Amino acid sequence: MRTEDHGLGHDLRHDLRHHGDAEVRDDGSALVDLAVNVRADTPPRWLRARIADSLTGLAAYPDGRAARAAVAARHGLPVERVLLTAGAAEAFVLLARALKVRQPVVVHPQFTEPEAALRDAGHTVDRVLLSAADGFRLDPAAVPEDADLVVIGNPTNPTSVLHPADAIAQLARPGRTLVVDEAFMDAVPGEREALAGRTDVPGLVVLRSLTKTWGLAGLRIGYVLAAPETIAELERAQPLWPVSTPALAAAEACVEPRALAEAGHAAHRIAADRAHLVAGLREFAPEGLTVAEPAEGPFVLVRLPNAARVRRRLRDLGFAVRRGDTFPGLDDEWLRLAVRDRATVNSFLQALDQALAASA
Amino acid sequence: MRTEDHGLGHDLRHDLRHHGDAEVRDDGSALVDLAVNVRADTPPRWLRARIADSLTGLAAYPDGRAARAAVAARHGLPVERVLLTAGAAEAFVLLARALKVRQPVVVHPQFTEPEAALRDAGHTVDRVLLSAADGFRLDPAAVPEDADLVVIGNPTNPTSVLHPADAIAQLARPGRTLVVDEAFMDAVPGEREALAGRTDVPGLVVLRSLTKTWGLAGLRIGYVLAAPETIAELERAQPLWPVSTPALAAAEACVEPRALAEAGHAAHRIAADRAHLVAGLREFAPEGLTVAEPAEGPFVLVRLPNAARVRRRLRDLGFAVRRGDTFPGLDDEWLRLAVRDRATVNSFLQALDQALAASA
Repeated sequence: MRTEDHGLGHDLRHDLRHHGDAEVRDDGSALVDLAVNVRADTPPRWLRARIADSLTGLAAYPDGRAARAAVAARHGLPVERVLLTAGAAEAFVLLARALKVRQPVVVHPQFTEPEAALRDAGHTVDRVLLSAADGFRLDPAAVPEDADLVVIGNPTNPTSVLHPADAIAQLARPGRTLVVDEAFMDAVPGEREALAGRTDVPGLVVLRSLTKTWGLAGLRIGYVLAAPETIAELERAQPLWPVSTPALAAAEACVEPRALAEAGHAAHRIAADRAHLVAGLREFAPEGLTVAEPAEGPFVLVRLPNAARVRRRLRDLGFAVRRGDTFPGLDDEWLRLAVRDRATVNSFLQALDQALAASA
Repeated sequence: MRTEDHGLGHDLRHDLRHHGDAEVRDDGSALVDLAVNVRADTPPRWLRARIADSLTGLAAYPDGRAARAAVAARHGLPVERVLLTAGAAEAFVLLARALKVRQPVVVHPQFTEPEAALRDAGHTVDRVLLSAADGFRLDPAAVPEDADLVVIGNPTNPTSVLHPADAIAQLARPGRTLVVDEAFMDAVPGEREALAGRTDVPGLVVLRSLTKTWGLAGLRIGYVLAAPETIAELERAQPLWPVSTPALAAAEACVEPRALAEAGHAAHRIAADRAHLVAGLREFAPEGLTVAEPAEGPFVLVRLPNAARVRRRLRDLGFAVRRGDTFPGLDDEWLRLAVRDRATVNSFLQALDQALAASA
């Protein structure tokens, strides 16, 4: 683990604004998508119907109170600890622009948008780089003591590492904001290691997304859980009516008991599908392919020689995977694969076999 | 016309965060709504269908390129001059937080959100107050020379005054950003006095909304037209994927020739309905009621004794109107009335007759 200093502006080596959706749009729309971390075959029909129902009320300005109360109830928190946002992406911008921050630190490799938002807001961002040799495990001692904002993902995109909640909580300090991006936590069976709902960790800010599990990437809905004074600060930096009526309808629907049960079921299915994918990937060990393990998110990170060439070859064979080299701490030997159903995984593994043979 | 200095924080006399939607929600949902400036019976069925069609694509992240190109084409501008936003409200926050501004000035009375966003971003905001005695007309000389950001609405909410485009263009200065909120311009027949599409006014930033004419307040969609470098600055302060897929679908639909024709037709109908409303209101001159004229927007501003009492009485009679006293430059003698169809206006005028008699 090491730390890196970086100035303002976009990183030259890592395109922080590259995201998986770019891998499948335009000419990529015909590809089997293992690049974007959104659950396949979503949103489910019942949820689409709920969202469609909300369209009759579009002439009225959005009223977020019911959705906010529903999210608060889902986590056993008072509404003052909840802020609905136009996706987690808006939350990152609010954190970067609204909070008084001088020494932000981002724990990498992870989703690049928090760092991009901090830089765009004029901050100099320090990086803690977790290393592959350590299995991308968190060592709380590696985070600089003077950091007053620490951002970490759990489970982490793209490493799929699930950090122990206690290890993350140890990062809390007086005067420090500790941001835990739990965008993929609802894909972890039982949401073990979740910090959402905790009120005993000072400075804790938890981000949640409804995008990945529910297939609502196009709708822009997520939320922040934090102390009331932090929520108030973030809310002041939000535009009026920040979340649309259809997105509010979706948020309310996705925290209902029935939806939580469905998400829990999906988390177990993802775990089984991931086990199948990882077992298949291990067969390629002789070709030099390794999987970052244990993988606990709905995606896995793999390292292999000639990854860039393999990725292009997979594209020719009809499969989109996510390049790893845009994530700080990784290079062009890494690829991220979204977990899909067994049949899709099987055909992907066949294609990978061909791609590896052709790239050897 | 006079200028006022104000410090940080919310105004004590005027609640800048009071909006018409608060007058009709909760217990007000059964009221006939003349408080909210959204066209009645919207969105139209064809537009709702277009938005509903977009719901099948929700699992993908929003791709704003087609909508941006469509908006640019509608105004005859290159895409670099267009930024799609989550409603005009997001645009105000971007302007307040992303641009380097030291001396912002807001021309009042007008929509309070630009000033609220500037204050929330830490700015000290100067006000130019247009006076009722001048018919709320703009005198460009009244704007302080050192203002580096000037915000004005056209046609202006709540006065319904349509300033000449030339008078507004005279406010342009080297080093000054001139923000013209044209959220209601598409309700003016022929959009005369529009600055949207102009590239010859230095520092010009035009805001447009699709909310009012199309009944999409719940969807959060609007756009900014400005010089490419200003657009780039605002865009950097935006979250990733700032506009949802349904909102993008709506934007694309609302700038099609068929939609522009429908909006043009609606503008003429609004003008006729407004003439009917104003004629009816003039009948109450003996009771001390005056109308701010000429009214050119889809609402009218009226002054009358005991306006607060009349407003409460109207509520009892089933009609919601917008209080005027939360707008800087107005006091509790003012009310704003949305233009509605003749039948609604007729029953409103009857209720007003009763309310005035009871409040005399």
